[in-house]
Amino acid sequence: MAVIDINADLGEGFGIWELGDDLALLDVITSANVACGFHAGDPLIMRRVCAAAVERGVTIGAQVSYRDLAGFGRREMDVAAPELTAEVLYQLAALDGIARAEGGRVAYVKPHGALYNRVARDEAQARAVADAVRAFDASLPLLTLPGSVVHEVAGGLTVVAECFADRAYTPAGRLVPRREAGAVVHDAGEVVRRAVRMAVDGRVAAADGTDVELRARSMCVHGDTPGAVELARAVRAALTEAGVALEPFA
Amino acid sequence: MAVIDINADLGEGFGIWELGDDLALLDVITSANVACGFHAGDPLIMRRVCAAAVERGVTIGAQVSYRDLAGFGRREMDVAAPELTAEVLYQLAALDGIARAEGGRVAYVKPHGALYNRVARDEAQARAVADAVRAFDASLPLLTLPGSVVHEVAGGLTVVAECFADRAYTPAGRLVPRREAGAVVHDAGEVVRRAVRMAVDGRVAAADGTDVELRARSMCVHGDTPGAVELARAVRAALTEAGVALEPFA
Amino acid sequence: MAVIDINADLGEGFGIWELGDDLALLDVITSANVACGFHAGDPLIMRRVCAAAVERGVTIGAQVSYRDLAGFGRREMDVAAPELTAEVLYQLAALDGIARAEGGRVAYVKPHGALYNRVARDEAQARAVADAVRAFDASLPLLTLPGSVVHEVAGGLTVVAECFADRAYTPAGRLVPRREAGAVVHDAGEVVRRAVRMAVDGRVAAADGTDVELRARSMCVHGDTPGAVELARAVRAALTEAGVALEPFA
Amino acid sequence: MAVIDINADLGEGFGIWELGDDLALLDVITSANVACGFHAGDPLIMRRVCAAAVERGVTIGAQVSYRDLAGFGRREMDVAAPELTAEVLYQLAALDGIARAEGGRVAYVKPHGALYNRVARDEAQARAVADAVRAFDASLPLLTLPGSVVHEVAGGLTVVAECFADRAYTPAGRLVPRREAGAVVHDAGEVVRRAVRMAVDGRVAAADGTDVELRARSMCVHGDTPGAVELARAVRAALTEAGVALEPFA
Repeated sequence: MAVIDINADLGEGFGIWELGDDLALLDVITSANVACGFHAGDPLIMRRVCAAAVERGVTIGAQVSYRDLAGFGRREMDVAAPELTAEVLYQLAALDGIARAEGGRVAYVKPHGALYNRVARDEAQARAVADAVRAFDASLPLLTLPGSVVHEVAGGLTVVAECFADRAYTPAGRLVPRREAGAVVHDAGEVVRRAVRMAVDGRVAAADGTDVELRARSMCVHGDTPGAVELARAVRAALTEAGVALEPFA
Repeated sequence: MAVIDINADLGEGFGIWELGDDLALLDVITSANVACGFHAGDPLIMRRVCAAAVERGVTIGAQVSYRDLAGFGRREMDVAAPELTAEVLYQLAALDGIARAEGGRVAYVKPHGALYNRVARDEAQARAVADAVRAFDASLPLLTLPGSVVHEVAGGLTVVAECFADRAYTPAGRLVPRREAGAVVHDAGEVVRRAVRMAVDGRVAAADGTDVELRARSMCVHGDTPGAVELARAVRAALTEAGVALEPFA
Repeated sequence: MAVIDINADLGEGFGIWELGDDLALLDVITSANVACGFHAGDPLIMRRVCAAAVERGVTIGAQVSYRDLAGFGRREMDVAAPELTAEVLYQLAALDGIARAEGGRVAYVKPHGALYNRVARDEAQARAVADAVRAFDASLPLLTLPGSVVHEVAGGLTVVAECFADRAYTPAGRLVPRREAGAVVHDAGEVVRRAVRMAVDGRVAAADGTDVELRARSMCVHGDTPGAVELARAVRAALTEAGVALEPFA
Repeated sequence: MAVIDINADLGEGFGIWELGDDLALLDVITSANVACGFHAGDPLIMRRVCAAAVERGVTIGAQVSYRDLAGFGRREMDVAAPELTAEVLYQLAALDGIARAEGGRVAYVKPHGALYNRVARDEAQARAVADAVRAFDASLPLLTLPGSVVHEVAGGLTVVAECFADRAYTPAGRLVPRREAGAVVHDAGEVVRRAVRMAVDGRVAAADGTDVELRARSMCVHGDTPGAVELARAVRAALTEAGVALEPFA
């Protein structure tokens, strides 16, 4: 029987500003990537999201980022490895302490935005992130792209691959970059069908029509675009309908 | 035999900027109040200070603050209790995770600057800080002024009183406010004599010449002014000479 | 013939985060209080709001604030006068340069949030803000509460009083504090009727039923609550209907 | 008769933190690159530096940067062009307003740190910076490296080349990257001799011993390293001794 986790980014407001519908998403997902204050998420938001996740039995992950509130962590930065390791460790520890105060704990780590993309190809930054996780708790898995450089520098850490129901893939199984046409699949029915096939068969139709293998233990859904929550609900319903078990990976 | 702890603020640089001589102070003190990133201290500085403290057997405390890098945490802010609790919890957890990565841990909490003064008289903020400590680890003591409101709202937390070798006291045993003349004792010999008397007799001459009781388990020394490290060394030497045992309180 | 200005806070998003419907409000108001980056508003948002205001002939004002993104400038801070003056000057100059690049200019200054309330009663901070305006351009008016201490320390600056259509007033003509019941008038018809009376008669019914004089050259409407834009439109329509001329004060 | 300008970075403290000896440097240089708050420099520091520069007749330039206090603007960031243009415009306008309040004005623009290096080779960011300067005041010159891409995208702006007395050059007249051995010339006598030759002959010995042309209207000296101020004074004295006129370029 197929098993998959559904993850989404949560707690991405800051101060007065809100983003996405955290409570609605918590009823859809099995793992919450909680922002840790560097690209979004202030301590009070972090606390509220952790409390809500614990209440619903949703697993908590640390969504660590570059220090860049103005750019929402979406701009690559040439951060030196020792700084990056210390910054990831800081975020991870802060969220874990908050999660524990609410009866939970951080169970995995997922880099956010530009850091997510950078560690997929930059060994120095990938190793810096892995070093932080190992320094904090070497049993925590890192959630990342299949084919990411992180797999090579993890040095004993568990690395978990994720897939995206609404993103186009290259024939090599990589994401089509967002700046290219067709990078995002907008048709809801199409997204749902792809999600089920990824979970059940571990395969997806690439942008050129070829069929590629895509083994992922977690599926990422988005929450901050119009209709996103409805789409996430539809994906979840279709997965359940197809007999896929929804279980956190961590 | 008299026993006292010597504490000082450490890790108060940020990025390229440095403040004080952390390594020199670590050879003088028994407890290090490490800045947690809100008024000073970035994650890499925090990590280096924790590593150096662990190496020397100096106890680590979380020097939590208002979120105010531009004002170095020295400006009172009307932060609502839930935000303040979450912000203190965040800082405490972040530093503890970093300290543990270096083989240590946070053993106590000391509010910094304007927050230190505010919690001495503002019940709501004092309770907010105490709530954060309790939520993180109710066994951690809070280091504060004798007579602080914190003592009244601590709700089971251990509260430890500290004294200042170089500050003048009122006949009621409170600090003479910094804006008043004579608030700081500048003569080194005088500072050393007062320090020994505070530690050995638990008494100090107040600004009006009367003698007041001052029971404190920890003595704060400063590190960021010219001659501060030498003065701190002289205080330590005089305490040892007078037979006072130097031991962390936590 | 009665003349009044309608002002509202604009450009209060930051980075990815949005707040209120700036374009809709620009069709209602005659003066835009544009956030300057300290409580909200990044440079790109500032530029876009200024361009849109210039296009519609709406007057631009600098909505200056404490440096407090996390608290949206709503928390009082004990900022020393020289810092506050320099910070207000910085914000004012930054917005003016951006406005000029779009063919406009800053025509007045309105303190935001906690700073607005603080300068109404704190002489030192009020003088610090006035000093900044005078240092930048002594011809710029300051928009504030009737009865504010700003009037006393303005030292030659023009001070313009504003009224609030949706706020309750004390018999002395002050705002009923937000923490008190009935501080905000929620009934749309009531708000519209009060607005017209303020503009036409310069009077309003106080919370205790007495009738108080309220001479204001500008009326503040809000834009960041549900239904706010519709209410602002209704106020504008009613003012026009009542023969009130809508004209910026600066 | 040879003519050159001497420039240095000033106002690079933040809040409580200081960096370099601004007042000493102001007696050596003819142009001050004043930090604008994004990598260093708070509004009060900006104001004090501008006042001191105006008092001594030193020309003020805007040292604009990425938004990165934690990294002192030394980390390259993938900032999109519209954001970068708006951010540079914001900094430029803020400093100009502060300078005018002190009786001066911004007379040129010099990108700082990673932005300085990035615009030397990245057309999009170079054009973004040039767009900001043009939007603010197209008569302001941009100070940059000879050979920088900025020259190509300046679109009518004046671009002024600078040289570095203490840096090694390639045979092509580019700076030897800092990560390579010998990138910085440490011998004071050597630095002084090179400075004079750059100013008088417009030539310098490259790292491989060949002699290269180096036409620069301004020479950068550093102020934040031990002995830097003394070295800057020696360079100035030698230039004067050699009959070189020291004059700002803007």
